[in-house]
Amino acid sequence: MNFLGSHILSIDQFDTNDVETLFSVADQMQPYAQRELKTRVLEGAILGALFFEPSTRTRISFGCAFNLLGGQVRETTAIKASALAKGESLYDTARVISGYSDIIAMRHPMNGSVEEFSRASRVPVINAGDGSAEHPSQALLDLYTIKKELKINQGFDGLNIAMVGDLKFGRTVHSLCKLLKLYKNISFTLVSPGELKMPELIVEDLRQAGHKVIETEDMETALHDKHTVYLTRIQEERFSSQEEANIYRGRFRLNQSIYTAHCQPNTVIMHPLPRDSRAEANELDNDLNQHPSLAIFRQADNGVVIRMAMFALTLGVENDIHKTSSEVHWYTDRRF
Amino acid sequence: MNFLGSHILSIDQFDTNDVETLFSVADQMQPYAQRELKTRVLEGAILGALFFEPSTRTRISFGCAFNLLGGQVRETTAIKASALAKGESLYDTARVISGYSDIIAMRHPMNGSVEEFSRASRVPVINAGDGSAEHPSQALLDLYTIKKELKINQGFDGLNIAMVGDLKFGRTVHSLCKLLKLYKNISFTLVSPGELKMPELIVEDLRQAGHKVIETEDMETALHDKHTVYLTRIQEERFSSQEEANIYRGRFRLNQSIYTAHCQPNTVIMHPLPRDSRAEANELDNDLNQHPSLAIFRQADNGVVIRMAMFALTLGVENDIHKTSSEVHWYTDRRF
Amino acid sequence: MNFLGSHILSIDQFDTNDVETLFSVADQMQPYAQRELKTRVLEGAILGALFFEPSTRTRISFGCAFNLLGGQVRETTAIKASALAKGESLYDTARVISGYSDIIAMRHPMNGSVEEFSRASRVPVINAGDGSAEHPSQALLDLYTIKKELKINQGFDGLNIAMVGDLKFGRTVHSLCKLLKLYKNISFTLVSPGELKMPELIVEDLRQAGHKVIETEDMETALHDKHTVYLTRIQEERFSSQEEANIYRGRFRLNQSIYTAHCQPNTVIMHPLPRDSRAEANELDNDLNQHPSLAIFRQADNGVVIRMAMFALTLGVENDIHKTSSEVHWYTDRRF
Repeated sequence: MNFLGSHILSIDQFDTNDVETLFSVADQMQPYAQRELKTRVLEGAILGALFFEPSTRTRISFGCAFNLLGGQVRETTAIKASALAKGESLYDTARVISGYSDIIAMRHPMNGSVEEFSRASRVPVINAGDGSAEHPSQALLDLYTIKKELKINQGFDGLNIAMVGDLKFGRTVHSLCKLLKLYKNISFTLVSPGELKMPELIVEDLRQAGHKVIETEDMETALHDKHTVYLTRIQEERFSSQEEANIYRGRFRLNQSIYTAHCQPNTVIMHPLPRDSRAEANELDNDLNQHPSLAIFRQADNGVVIRMAMFALTLGVENDIHKTSSEVHWYTDRRF
Repeated sequence: MNFLGSHILSIDQFDTNDVETLFSVADQMQPYAQRELKTRVLEGAILGALFFEPSTRTRISFGCAFNLLGGQVRETTAIKASALAKGESLYDTARVISGYSDIIAMRHPMNGSVEEFSRASRVPVINAGDGSAEHPSQALLDLYTIKKELKINQGFDGLNIAMVGDLKFGRTVHSLCKLLKLYKNISFTLVSPGELKMPELIVEDLRQAGHKVIETEDMETALHDKHTVYLTRIQEERFSSQEEANIYRGRFRLNQSIYTAHCQPNTVIMHPLPRDSRAEANELDNDLNQHPSLAIFRQADNGVVIRMAMFALTLGVENDIHKTSSEVHWYTDRRF
Repeated sequence: MNFLGSHILSIDQFDTNDVETLFSVADQMQPYAQRELKTRVLEGAILGALFFEPSTRTRISFGCAFNLLGGQVRETTAIKASALAKGESLYDTARVISGYSDIIAMRHPMNGSVEEFSRASRVPVINAGDGSAEHPSQALLDLYTIKKELKINQGFDGLNIAMVGDLKFGRTVHSLCKLLKLYKNISFTLVSPGELKMPELIVEDLRQAGHKVIETEDMETALHDKHTVYLTRIQEERFSSQEEANIYRGRFRLNQSIYTAHCQPNTVIMHPLPRDSRAEANELDNDLNQHPSLAIFRQADNGVVIRMAMFALTLGVENDIHKTSSEVHWYTDRRF
């Protein structure tokens, strides 16, 4: 993949070299994300952030990443506040908004919509989540987190991962599976209610690529010998009713006592966030909040450097960042 | 009109010299809008963008224009998220928000509200659309588009234009008529359902100024020999019910076969956007999307340079823009 | 209080020296707020503005203050547009959003929520109003306004102030009472319907600190001999129904004739805004809009310099502001 000027719509576009390239640029972004340095490399550039579905962390993470590169952000956050409500096609929206922007990050509730939008766009488009389909920046920050947490130098061959929860509607696990598929001998243990299993197409793909996939409803056994356990929220907003979603909320839960009894001492705990901490769901208990292997907030932090790297590579400024950089001189001591 | 420090509320403020001045500054903005150059001329300045009515393109276009001049944007997008919902007068809102801003762009559903607001404002106010009344930046970008598409050097005397659709509630056609009135021997053919005719006051004004106005419901004949056809959407949100709006949606439509049969080979197709592409409306068919005379996306692009020129002139920096300019060095190849 | 890296959650954190320090920095911010100078001192820094309750002026005032210091703002404005709607805890939101920001300003409808959020935050948090509890930046800008309007050099001992309206739910008067309590011999005349009296705890606190407190429903007598009268809106949104709120709207009103009959010639009129100018409320009549003692818009302006001072002090840049400053060269003549 040639990042320069490219849309980033799907994990399908990536090979292992692309992942290496992106992670290497992300590493260089760390002093900026940690507010040791600042840069003006994208001063004057505009990110069109189109979030046609509620989002807090992904929206702010993309915006923050662009600001940290020196750029400006113009945001649209509600579908009813937009021309789409007046019958405008995605084609028209794309032709127009891309004229205002240097790059676009877009989330939309409909599968495939971001790809459709990108075909009419005059600037690079990054998919920030389309329905239950894909969320490539999330998969990449997830893999980057695995790399950092497990202190892996090269590749992910032999990784042993459990994924737990709503594997049907959770687009983050779909994208992460596609990404891990690029490596060798990954062992996937997929824990979900039967009705919320990983789509068969993805499972078949993994198996045909030579990976081991176990599907189960027994979470406790599944936790044994894992490098990483990746928990997910029941995606209420994809069900036809709250009642239907409630059938599954709270089915699988990880807490301190289950972790101690069933996980390895250093099993990395991940979650794409938000986690549903209401009593009836609570898929990942707060009693693990101080656990050193709870990576969920470092995972969110990693989203910033991954997105900075995406912007830098698609806009071709990855080698110019340090040219306009200078030291941060305001208070940053509480950050870490 | 002295632009410096002025509100821009209505086309009534403009004479032909003002239009020339604005278009000349807009021409200078092109390399910035096309991302060849960037400038810091308004670094440190704040645009208060008050959109008390849903808007995507106009809102982003104003914000983008201000960002491209180096300024910051503070946006308010929903009337219920604002103090107006707590019984605040426009006078108070204006006194307060103008204290936070260097210039204000405002859209409001009520005719005359922006003018009322401007009387209390301590900074220049640009009307971004008030009810069905005015939308001066749209009219100016429309006229600028006509100039560019028809490659006109000077004035618009003798222009032959058709306007089609909801001419009663469409504020863009009201403002465009007022603007064209400044020139000589314009021929207007106004195509609308009888209930959605251009307000009589505007038609009378045009006739008294010596222009030719034909009102008709026969679109096909109206298209003959036109330099430009300007289509509009049925402004559903101005009707008392969706049902009432539906009576008119789809009444007049332009598509490839009608264009070929009735238009001149180079008749410029314009639309203020958004166009309603749902089957029951579809006033401008997608089968014309690749047509070289379809100017609607260039028209939207022109909004950026026109608004940059408005900001530059009212804030008095039109001669300083190049002083802090430098070359853009990120990827821009896909733009055009 | 050591401002550097501190949260600002409550007036309880302040002593009179802290107030002096803050007001002194605010004074230095005046040429920036009045657009004589601009600065880049926080260029590259990001304010996370979290407004989980509708707000126009406070939200824009915080954002504007941060922009005027050269920083960027990432805003979240609606609780339903956020992950909180998906069951996320304040703890999680705080861990994540603070990773994206250099400082956070937060408003929330629930008393105590901002303090809870701050405990998990990795960057300084400024309370922009939590339920009916506190709104410290408002109290500080109110006191700063009293200082400026009355041309007080040092302290506020002996101040004679009337507070009028909804003293039960109005968080601004709660915070202002706590702040004035730090000084000596303040005379408070509290005018409210019996059901909307100042919380007993606050009144007792003031009395134990040696201040004089009169509670009354007779506004006209209360106005005599006051340095300042501070009016408030009935906080409709805190009542269980609009009907209940309506019982109290319009109970106490100040207008030109009452002012002339009962106030001192220079009694300063204050209001935290928005004022409810609908006929049935109208607690502060528009016929006083031109009165030289009407301080309400200067009061709103003062919010910008107070918030700039808060940002500068908590981020430790109060002595660096002038190092990157330069003159403003765009049009600013209409401002004052």
